Amino acid sequence: MLFGTARLTVLKTICRSHPRPHTRSFASSRPPRADRAVIYSENGDPSEVLNVLTFPDLPPPGSDSVTIQFLLSPINPADINVIEGVYPSKPIKTGALASSGKGSEEEPVFIGGNEGLAQVTAVGSSVSSLKINDWVVVTKQQHGTWSTRKNVAVTDVALIPDAHKLDEAQAATITASVNPPSAYNMLNDFVRLEKGDWVVQNGANSAVGQAVIQIAAAHGLKTINLIRNRENVELLKSQLGQLGATHVLTYDDLLDKSIRGKVKEWTGGKDIKLGLNCVGGKDTTLMSRLLGQDAHLVSYGAMSKQPLSLPTSLFIFKNLTCHGFWQRRWYADKTPQQRDTLMRTIVNMLADGQVHYCSK
Amino acid sequence: MLFGTARLTVLKTICRSHPRPHTRSFASSRPPRADRAVIYSENGDPSEVLNVLTFPDLPPPGSDSVTIQFLLSPINPADINVIEGVYPSKPIKTGALASSGKGSEEEPVFIGGNEGLAQVTAVGSSVSSLKINDWVVVTKQQHGTWSTRKNVAVTDVALIPDAHKLDEAQAATITASVNPPSAYNMLNDFVRLEKGDWVVQNGANSAVGQAVIQIAAAHGLKTINLIRNRENVELLKSQLGQLGATHVLTYDDLLDKSIRGKVKEWTGGKDIKLGLNCVGGKDTTLMSRLLGQDAHLVSYGAMSKQPLSLPTSLFIFKNLTCHGFWQRRWYADKTPQQRDTLMRTIVNMLADGQVHYCSK
Repeated sequence: MLFGTARLTVLKTICRSHPRPHTRSFASSRPPRADRAVIYSENGDPSEVLNVLTFPDLPPPGSDSVTIQFLLSPINPADINVIEGVYPSKPIKTGALASSGKGSEEEPVFIGGNEGLAQVTAVGSSVSSLKINDWVVVTKQQHGTWSTRKNVAVTDVALIPDAHKLDEAQAATITASVNPPSAYNMLNDFVRLEKGDWVVQNGANSAVGQAVIQIAAAHGLKTINLIRNRENVELLKSQLGQLGATHVLTYDDLLDKSIRGKVKEWTGGKDIKLGLNCVGGKDTTLMSRLLGQDAHLVSYGAMSKQPLSLPTSLFIFKNLTCHGFWQRRWYADKTPQQRDTLMRTIVNMLADGQVHYCSK
Repeated sequence: MLFGTARLTVLKTICRSHPRPHTRSFASSRPPRADRAVIYSENGDPSEVLNVLTFPDLPPPGSDSVTIQFLLSPINPADINVIEGVYPSKPIKTGALASSGKGSEEEPVFIGGNEGLAQVTAVGSSVSSLKINDWVVVTKQQHGTWSTRKNVAVTDVALIPDAHKLDEAQAATITASVNPPSAYNMLNDFVRLEKGDWVVQNGANSAVGQAVIQIAAAHGLKTINLIRNRENVELLKSQLGQLGATHVLTYDDLLDKSIRGKVKEWTGGKDIKLGLNCVGGKDTTLMSRLLGQDAHLVSYGAMSKQPLSLPTSLFIFKNLTCHGFWQRRWYADKTPQQRDTLMRTIVNMLADGQVHYCSK
């Protein structure tokens, strides 16, 4: 997730107000008694501008839409930036929650939240790709997911295929939907990696970082993983090792000039082909020096809030290429088939136990 | 050229010691009376380690080699760095200049120089791709071109096709062989540009920069060109304008916050798709903010000696991709046919007057 480790924080106050659908048997869920959403009308400090709106009369879905009931909606650091109005992608106000007053066409509002796992509770007359009780994730950016229910166009959500394979915690992992897909796509979209190839990443204990470690390990790739130094760093190293990390280093280790020789020993002199960066700043400069000839460095975050600063010689003489990755753009650029294929891949990796999360 | 504007500085002292072949009529050149080269045995300050070696007994070329007589050999700033031993690509000593003493197998030496225009004076028994009097440029990096003659493998040089179309000054332009090819390849290899598309570059008055302006103009591309502020900056602006520059700005102009609006006006809101950078540092950070969605920034030098420092948001949200370009690698990676096609393209652009240089 952008600008920090995404932590899945369920909006418990909202979810508890709501009868939880019996997800395992996929029985029809009872209609909610009163829908509620966390909304705001103008940008500002979240503690001042956010309100809870009750909207008891959600209309039925349009012909190409479905009504979805949110099961889990995370809060990400970026969601706060959106409310503050300082995030590059801006939400659009909705007037479809009520027929009059706040949330109506006359008084549209922003709904907070960018990610969410939901269950379909009603389908429009022309909808054939989704049916009642299907589980979906919201793929359109800044759609507003801090709501008990809402009507959405079928193109703004992606079906979680074979959802019966997942337990709720796994589904919640998909709810934080940019993490495993980001990891999977960054490992696949920029350079062709063969079994035994090496990847280096920073922020390795972030949600994306942990997914990278596990997906890489499942595909026979080797990873060098960078984390911040901390108390009990050995515990975290061992946890990441259990996930499949080949080596774990701290950013402090990069300051030691002998590190390049050590890494060369580990890789047997093989070029490291891919670097994944969610940190930026000096630590990333040092990491990039570990990359081999013709490598690709993919940035998906900037936790340090420092720019990416790289010696030009890496570009000219080592033929480094630098890219950015944003899962939201990936969803926007791809066909429904490609999105479905990705979702199936992720669901199967979760169901097979290839990807899960360690506690810290 | 790397780390500064390449300036073509002919090694006159060497060239004058040598009967100049009658290049226009392509008559057989007389064999030289005494060959000489600027050589060194170990890295260090050029004023201390360089020597002139006389080698009167150059052996005939091997079966897959040719003997070439240098017409013009430039000195580039990078050549100095090579002699100092601080440049990433290292030359290999040669022992093929003499049968004993310095320059022989027992006492091999480095020859200075990385670029050169030469004429073939003898061909090996298996050589069919080159004949006596052909003009060639040396394409293998750090081959040692500060010499009156040497034997080279045919794969280490590229024929200048249709050399009769060129006068000596134009040929000299090819001798500084990385500049027009660099400009041409950077405009073609990274993003598909259509007539009317926009390119922004810094170091616009460098040899590569001037070639970019002219090649872009010849293909109907628009350029925004950045130069340092200086006395008589208007004169340089007008010279670059005469070469075909659409707009010329100084780095100081980039500090003005209204500049992005101005550029947007010029482009009619069209995204700038390509940026070319030989400067690095803060000025390049500011330039990169002018780039549009999905743009490519290609670095081929670092005149400021500052790293390339870019906000991560450009990568993530604007999908910027950063590359390096090195004409030497281009030559090394391509087939003889591709190299020949490039050379023909450049020769024709020079012969048609599409590319030339303004005085400053």
